[in-house]
Amino acid sequence: SDRYSLLVLPGDGIGPEVMAEVTKVIDWFGTNRGMSFDISHGLVGGSSYDAHGTPLTDETMARAQAVDAVLLGAVGGPAYDNLDFSVKPERGLLRLRKEMDLYANLRPAQCFDALADFSSLKREVVAGLDILIVRELTSGVYFGEPRGIHSDDNNPDNEGGRVGINTQRYTSGEIRRVARSAFELARRRSNRVCSMEKANVMESGILWREEVQWVHDNEYPDVGLTHMYADNGAMQLVRRPQQFDVIVTDNLFGDILSDAAAMLTGSLGMLPSASLGAPMANGRPKALYEPVHGSAPDIAGQGKANPIACILSFAMALRYSFDRGDAAVELERAVERVLADGVRTADLMGPEGGTPVTTAQMGDRIVAAL
Amino acid sequence: SDRYSLLVLPGDGIGPEVMAEVTKVIDWFGTNRGMSFDISHGLVGGSSYDAHGTPLTDETMARAQAVDAVLLGAVGGPAYDNLDFSVKPERGLLRLRKEMDLYANLRPAQCFDALADFSSLKREVVAGLDILIVRELTSGVYFGEPRGIHSDDNNPDNEGGRVGINTQRYTSGEIRRVARSAFELARRRSNRVCSMEKANVMESGILWREEVQWVHDNEYPDVGLTHMYADNGAMQLVRRPQQFDVIVTDNLFGDILSDAAAMLTGSLGMLPSASLGAPMANGRPKALYEPVHGSAPDIAGQGKANPIACILSFAMALRYSFDRGDAAVELERAVERVLADGVRTADLMGPEGGTPVTTAQMGDRIVAAL
Ligand SMILES: CC(C)[C@H](C(=O)O)[C@@H](O)C(=O)O
Ligand SMILES: CC(C)[C@H](C(=O)O)[C@@H](O)C(=O)O
Repeated sequence: SDRYSLLVLPGDGIGPEVMAEVTKVIDWFGTNRGMSFDISHGLVGGSSYDAHGTPLTDETMARAQAVDAVLLGAVGGPAYDNLDFSVKPERGLLRLRKEMDLYANLRPAQCFDALADFSSLKREVVAGLDILIVRELTSGVYFGEPRGIHSDDNNPDNEGGRVGINTQRYTSGEIRRVARSAFELARRRSNRVCSMEKANVMESGILWREEVQWVHDNEYPDVGLTHMYADNGAMQLVRRPQQFDVIVTDNLFGDILSDAAAMLTGSLGMLPSASLGAPMANGRPKALYEPVHGSAPDIAGQGKANPIACILSFAMALRYSFDRGDAAVELERAVERVLADGVRTADLMGPEGGTPVTTAQMGDRIVAAL
Repeated sequence: SDRYSLLVLPGDGIGPEVMAEVTKVIDWFGTNRGMSFDISHGLVGGSSYDAHGTPLTDETMARAQAVDAVLLGAVGGPAYDNLDFSVKPERGLLRLRKEMDLYANLRPAQCFDALADFSSLKREVVAGLDILIVRELTSGVYFGEPRGIHSDDNNPDNEGGRVGINTQRYTSGEIRRVARSAFELARRRSNRVCSMEKANVMESGILWREEVQWVHDNEYPDVGLTHMYADNGAMQLVRRPQQFDVIVTDNLFGDILSDAAAMLTGSLGMLPSASLGAPMANGRPKALYEPVHGSAPDIAGQGKANPIACILSFAMALRYSFDRGDAAVELERAVERVLADGVRTADLMGPEGGTPVTTAQMGDRIVAAL
């Protein structure tokens, strides 16, 4: 039987609740599909700060580097809003992404047919929508130096006397490797990539456009490539999202555009993500899987959270880390069946109402449908 | 009678066509409302590059500084795509914004009732929508130094050997002044401001949040203020845009979020903008007015363009530069009446079809409705 090591980091807010349901799913695949999982647990974000005074300990970081895949719930919440920048819950997640060098963040925006009416967009605009956003995740303005808030006291024109600085910085190599991920993924889909930047106002955007084009011309001439300014991209996502197949973009634009794209589907509580790095010695990529949604502190601990995004993140682990596309499809089908049966957590209740199931009931129904 | 000086810069693509219709409207107000306009014309963008080898001459820049208001059509187009960064059409527009110090860019996202079905969003989500986005326009990553593309040849890890850099830089003073604009405008509306940044990952975002809060607490405690991360902001704009009144955000986020917001209304060809700076000696603010839409090279010269965004930009000039809110309302009502009568340019044709009017016919109808 195949053996896989997993590090589970439930995190904050609804993270632990949704992760509990994923554990049921993992158990099912262990028992029924001849896969065996070595699971260890750890802390990240606010819960790690509470226990250790840091959003991620060196020890947890080292374990993350050693496993086949990390599963993460969510980080952050108002309890941590006044923490110093360097120990904010988000820094734990950013450290994982950076030190594991998880440069390709895959964010599918799919509209589940059973939920198409739930979108704020018209059914005909979003029904059947299936976009994959590939977001660069280890560079750009998230990590560039110099950065910080400085005193600007000897500038008499600066009321307030401070200046805040961040640096958007990309190397050609960083752009090329994430472009390759996008082109590879496009070949297994509709074979079209749209690259988004602001090359009309930023030199880093010019470099982005040129390097993506270079990878295309030299290595993937068979894939369709277009370029779009990111502001127009935001517009086109709202106007006619079905025009896109794979979108590749930088860390900051990817953050914003993928959230907008996720919301189009009306299924924010449903959308998974995979963050992938270079292959390890065993051939598997460094990998972290997490839902696109956040820690939702307002509903934490109430059994209202939708565990599907986190469960589908495990499906992505089956596909990208464990090379078990068959098992991934099996899990995705089970989710679709449960939705088609009308099973709904509170976030999926339309204006027509109905009785929502709890987080745990949704997990149980999905396991039962497997 | 009141005298006003105007510099008209039609620019590229559909710019000249839509501006021709604005001229008719200006003439009407001159003849019928006792206003007198000194109008001069100039070149900007690709058309200036073609004539002078630069997207904005020093002479045009100096004239822009001296007038009461600049009216701009649009800049850019594929003919200029391969120009060097420093002479791109966009640099002409950016130079105007920067040297006139037009720090507050007002972008209303309004859904015209007659066009609500035209949005990709459901009618009930967008009908009656009336948001005002206040975008900082003279700083941030658009203008920060250092910037550029450099060789990184002695870095063996950097395949391609180049690095692209831009700097996101905000001073506390720059943030405070645009925050004041937002609070002032909110007081004349529903008295609520939502400020958007990424304070969870960027120090410049922390400074942004703190300074907006400072202006609120010390000068506008009566206005409702909330803060939102920009990725969540993009989501909320798609999910439930009616929750917002005034949004204040930085140059880059404002670029993207205002385009998404504009598209929600289904009326991209309809939306105006005002870019305002400090008061001049005569008490009027430095000001530039332009449509939110671009130069639309694909339909340029065909009489298909919708002149309403540019005409409504002149309405904003009446309100913010000439202190003639009465005349602005008169013009806005005329546009509404023409739309209610079913007059449509090609961009406003729904699936049900019909015969579109030309750019010039739309301009004539609006003048006739005045
Ligand atoms: C939590 C935060 C640091 C993170 C980001 O900005 O990348 C989140 O918004 C995301 O998209 O994963
Ligand atoms: C044309 C371009 C420079 C400009 C910008 O990026 O600001 C445009 O997108 C806008 O929003 O006015």
